[in-house]
Amino acid sequence: MRITLIGSGNVATHLGAALKNAGHQIVQVWSRNLQNAALLAYHVKAEPIDRLDAIHADTDLIIISVKDDAVEDVASFINIKNVLVVHTSGAVSMQTLEKHFIDCGVFYPLQTFSKSQEIDFRSVPLCIESTDKNSTEILFELGRTISNQVTYIDSAQRKTLHLAAVFACNFPNYLYSIATKLLQEQQMDFSLIKPLILETALKVQEFLPEEVQTGPAIRGDEQTMAAHLSLLEQNPELQEIYRMLSQDIIKMAKSRSA
Amino acid sequence: MRITLIGSGNVATHLGAALKNAGHQIVQVWSRNLQNAALLAYHVKAEPIDRLDAIHADTDLIIISVKDDAVEDVASFINIKNVLVVHTSGAVSMQTLEKHFIDCGVFYPLQTFSKSQEIDFRSVPLCIESTDKNSTEILFELGRTISNQVTYIDSAQRKTLHLAAVFACNFPNYLYSIATKLLQEQQMDFSLIKPLILETALKVQEFLPEEVQTGPAIRGDEQTMAAHLSLLEQNPELQEIYRMLSQDIIKMAKSRSA
Repeated sequence: MRITLIGSGNVATHLGAALKNAGHQIVQVWSRNLQNAALLAYHVKAEPIDRLDAIHADTDLIIISVKDDAVEDVASFINIKNVLVVHTSGAVSMQTLEKHFIDCGVFYPLQTFSKSQEIDFRSVPLCIESTDKNSTEILFELGRTISNQVTYIDSAQRKTLHLAAVFACNFPNYLYSIATKLLQEQQMDFSLIKPLILETALKVQEFLPEEVQTGPAIRGDEQTMAAHLSLLEQNPELQEIYRMLSQDIIKMAKSRSA
Repeated sequence: MRITLIGSGNVATHLGAALKNAGHQIVQVWSRNLQNAALLAYHVKAEPIDRLDAIHADTDLIIISVKDDAVEDVASFINIKNVLVVHTSGAVSMQTLEKHFIDCGVFYPLQTFSKSQEIDFRSVPLCIESTDKNSTEILFELGRTISNQVTYIDSAQRKTLHLAAVFACNFPNYLYSIATKLLQEQQMDFSLIKPLILETALKVQEFLPEEVQTGPAIRGDEQTMAAHLSLLEQNPELQEIYRMLSQDIIKMAKSRSA
């Protein structure tokens, strides 16, 4: 396919590389900043542009991969109307594009991307949504050229999926940073618990998280929980997090055994 | 070394196998339940026993690997006094053993173990503590035969380490289970976010968690956070978790940029 990339951030970069590697042609890369456009365009052998009215009409797909709150704005400046247009956002509904385009959809890669971290795109689930059956088929076919897991997810589901991703990724990462600080305060290195973090994530690749819950809360070990809370005496915020999550784990244990 | 294993749970099982594979001799395996002792003893070619007064004196090391709150009780029934005795618990201080033995210490493998999940013991950090220099050396030497990461951690540090492990393992796993439920309620499969969970854990193997924090809270994306909270309207407990963790992430972002 001939593809136009709108955006040059983390998602656009990884997605552009994956599409290029799968044999598709990236015709143009747009960014507000021409230097950023040029950097990605160089890697995917495309033309860099910084004006949305410079987009060629002879493209098969326009992928808008910009910050969530910029999708609507960018869409309103794209004047090409006969081309399928998708965005890559987990949080933006398809309706946002329907106001501006006849054929549109969503092409949401459910993963956390950093430019510095390589990623095997084949293992990234792709969530597809579209206004009509024909476009859905095109997006599924395109998706399968770069990912092993392509799924139809409607806008309502995607909202929940995005929320679930916050619980599964952003919040755990924040808890990792709490662990880091606790260790540093006692002159211990974060690397001590890296294997534990990795194993915890590996376990749920095979088992349901509820089945492999461990720790003092699920065991109902009041003594250890009290000791932990007293260690956190100087830090009421962390105490609060500890107390709340432990209480909810205890409730989960009770409802499961009931 | 000639080693006596007290316990037949997850830690004893994985540790016993690793020690046996490294060429050590497991002489006896004790469990309150003779069948459990026999099962592990069979795997490590040891004698199963269910009475603590049946422990042979001709052993180099006794490893107490039972539930945290049983360590003291078990220790009080071991009558052999000239042998080095360690426990494997993150939460129990060394003092608990000092009441009963002259030579004692801690041999704490910092990992989450399940019997059903194989583990590469070489990547499990071993935390060593001991009453004297000679025993410390023996435990370090033993530790290095099964693990690539052997560290001296005193009882005060180990308390904090255990607490940090709750934040790095038990709590994230609980958040995974919340994500599972959110997805199930909208007819989506948990497998959709498994790659995201794994990538989040992989990222912090290379970067500090604070450096790779993503999501609406760190971006200060009020609109998305409000949308997420309204999705959780039927579930005040999850709203509370969402609100508290997001607020703390926002604070972290502010203190970092200040």
